Amino acid sequence: MSDLVAPPGLAGVVVTDTTIGGVRGAEGFYHYREFSATELASRRTLEDIWYLFQFGSLPDEVQASQFAERLAGNRTIPEDALDLIVAAARLGSRRASLLWVRTAASVLAESLGTQTWIGRPLDDVATEAEGLIGALPTAIAAGWRAQQGLDPIMPNPQLPLATDFLRMLSGTTPTAAAARAFEQYLILTIDHGLNASTFAARAVASTGADVGSSIVAGIGSLSGPLHGGAPSLVLDMLEDIGTIDRVRPWVRKRLASGEPVMGFGHRVYRTDDPRAVMLKGVALEIGGPLVDLAIASEAIIVGELDRHRPGRDLRANVEFYAGVVLRLVGIPTELFPACFAISRSIGWTAHILEQISDNRVIRPKATYVGSPPPVPVPTLRTDDTFTP
Amino acid sequence: MSDLVAPPGLAGVVVTDTTIGGVRGAEGFYHYREFSATELASRRTLEDIWYLFQFGSLPDEVQASQFAERLAGNRTIPEDALDLIVAAARLGSRRASLLWVRTAASVLAESLGTQTWIGRPLDDVATEAEGLIGALPTAIAAGWRAQQGLDPIMPNPQLPLATDFLRMLSGTTPTAAAARAFEQYLILTIDHGLNASTFAARAVASTGADVGSSIVAGIGSLSGPLHGGAPSLVLDMLEDIGTIDRVRPWVRKRLASGEPVMGFGHRVYRTDDPRAVMLKGVALEIGGPLVDLAIASEAIIVGELDRHRPGRDLRANVEFYAGVVLRLVGIPTELFPACFAISRSIGWTAHILEQISDNRVIRPKATYVGSPPPVPVPTLRTDDTFTP
Repeated sequence: MSDLVAPPGLAGVVVTDTTIGGVRGAEGFYHYREFSATELASRRTLEDIWYLFQFGSLPDEVQASQFAERLAGNRTIPEDALDLIVAAARLGSRRASLLWVRTAASVLAESLGTQTWIGRPLDDVATEAEGLIGALPTAIAAGWRAQQGLDPIMPNPQLPLATDFLRMLSGTTPTAAAARAFEQYLILTIDHGLNASTFAARAVASTGADVGSSIVAGIGSLSGPLHGGAPSLVLDMLEDIGTIDRVRPWVRKRLASGEPVMGFGHRVYRTDDPRAVMLKGVALEIGGPLVDLAIASEAIIVGELDRHRPGRDLRANVEFYAGVVLRLVGIPTELFPACFAISRSIGWTAHILEQISDNRVIRPKATYVGSPPPVPVPTLRTDDTFTP
Repeated sequence: MSDLVAPPGLAGVVVTDTTIGGVRGAEGFYHYREFSATELASRRTLEDIWYLFQFGSLPDEVQASQFAERLAGNRTIPEDALDLIVAAARLGSRRASLLWVRTAASVLAESLGTQTWIGRPLDDVATEAEGLIGALPTAIAAGWRAQQGLDPIMPNPQLPLATDFLRMLSGTTPTAAAARAFEQYLILTIDHGLNASTFAARAVASTGADVGSSIVAGIGSLSGPLHGGAPSLVLDMLEDIGTIDRVRPWVRKRLASGEPVMGFGHRVYRTDDPRAVMLKGVALEIGGPLVDLAIASEAIIVGELDRHRPGRDLRANVEFYAGVVLRLVGIPTELFPACFAISRSIGWTAHILEQISDNRVIRPKATYVGSPPPVPVPTLRTDDTFTP
């Protein structure tokens, strides 16, 4: 078989079939299974969509309540693991939350005793993953609180995950509007084609590794600025702009100096990013000065970008309004990437399960282009040449 | 651009050029940079080869001693990180050492404060990686001892890494022969083409993630039985066989029942696995009943495999003699995979540095083959459809 040489970064190379979802850049549309992702986010709960990812169909009422109850039960972390997670958060950088969350996920996997999937029923592996990512919000909230010198808050299994996470962070039960806005952010960011972290999670799973190793690899990938991006930078930008009258001079100066404007343009979408459109609506439901500033900034920046780079048609991407929504519901800026991990880990899990249900080790090739090695000596016998 | 559809597992797909090394399966030969890997293992120290991986050339005497000294300094772990690592080892499974070593590596990265490589000099990133993987042997020894209820043993920077690791495990300075045998095992297993863990480490690095996330992903991948394999199973097999006279009946019964025989055959080598050949020589240098049994078993098993599957020409692979050598130098069976991580992490680091020196995010595509989603509604306005 002669080798296929792939373009750098495997750009445009199809490495697998999937039934999990897809992105149609030209149409500004993406879907989970056969459903529009934004429609799902407007009408269903996070737990329902989690079910859809894990089992391939939407739950009926009984299935939905049973699954939600099981997920809520997964939120509790044994004391020894929680102690370790809190210590890892204290050891880690406050600014780079995903790096200590990576440790936390690895600890959760150890605590659950996740194992290789080889020779085990798919359901068992799914249950392991559910347990691990179900406890991640508790770990993130506890770790963040420890960094502020605060004690962890135990989960309340009566509450949906999005509500409970906000409560475990702040100590206060959020308003229904805030909880629903956060839940919609989570639903919208579960999956988005075969992105870099999802592919890394599948690659690790393909070796037979436990789901813990795959999720940990996903979190690590997400920490890369070329992937997870930085919705917090959008907030820094809005803060720097300050008021609506300052938007136009700010962006003109920025463009003139060649500096980037955060939160605009997307690699795949050639029209509106449907996540940005919906998150803008979510932000409007809550409203307030930050939302007013964001909406005015979006309009002005899009116009200025169009003058600056005619024909590029750059529009607000998911990061622009994700940052706004997360701020509105009270998430500390440094936890934005960790929130992304809460939702995206549901997508990773579906991909891991898909990968192992028809597995082939992901193991491409490299071409050696360095200085040529010597002509090989056939069957070098060590015992002849060994010098201690 | 029309999409390229890759074979499952990216088999035979060249994803990058490399100057790190290569494997020539037909010739039974592999090389690090332009040098035969087995030649390097017979003549140089681990620290020299580490230098070769990191800097691209072999060190002169001054460079070698300076680099060895720097590496030895990296072996010390701050107390807060060591406490966490010991706790992670206690929490984890004794049998699956890589799963708690994964946590340990993540903690070491946190402790070192490794960051995204974006916008930073390559040398800084190399130094971070050197610090992280340089401390890994200390973490593994301390974690394993904690699992046995033993206190950690602090590193001795006067000793080479291989010697010091054996000492930090057992509390006793090993014989020169054992230390050198272990060092040769480590050298021989640093790199071997673009294997699954190396590719996963590169994929994670490609997002801009810190070296910690890449190394942690590599360790996770290595834990998969389809990659890291299980040299410990070879030892279980030899133990089960027991004596030389029992080899032939044992293997015949095994083959007749369709059960696998561990440690034979290789995906790439069509002749002797050069690592097995050299490790056999290393084992013979030490000698003893286990070596006698292994050598007799190899000869008999190869013959029986040839009778059972004529023309397949199955030979002993690296796992067969790696397990023997690791046992001879006193490594507990459950730490075999962790020892593999000590050496392979040197290879991962070289690949990570190569990846980021000319980076493109590794982000392939998937084809959606599930039930068709509805015809997209252009620019769905959430505020029209939102139901709280």
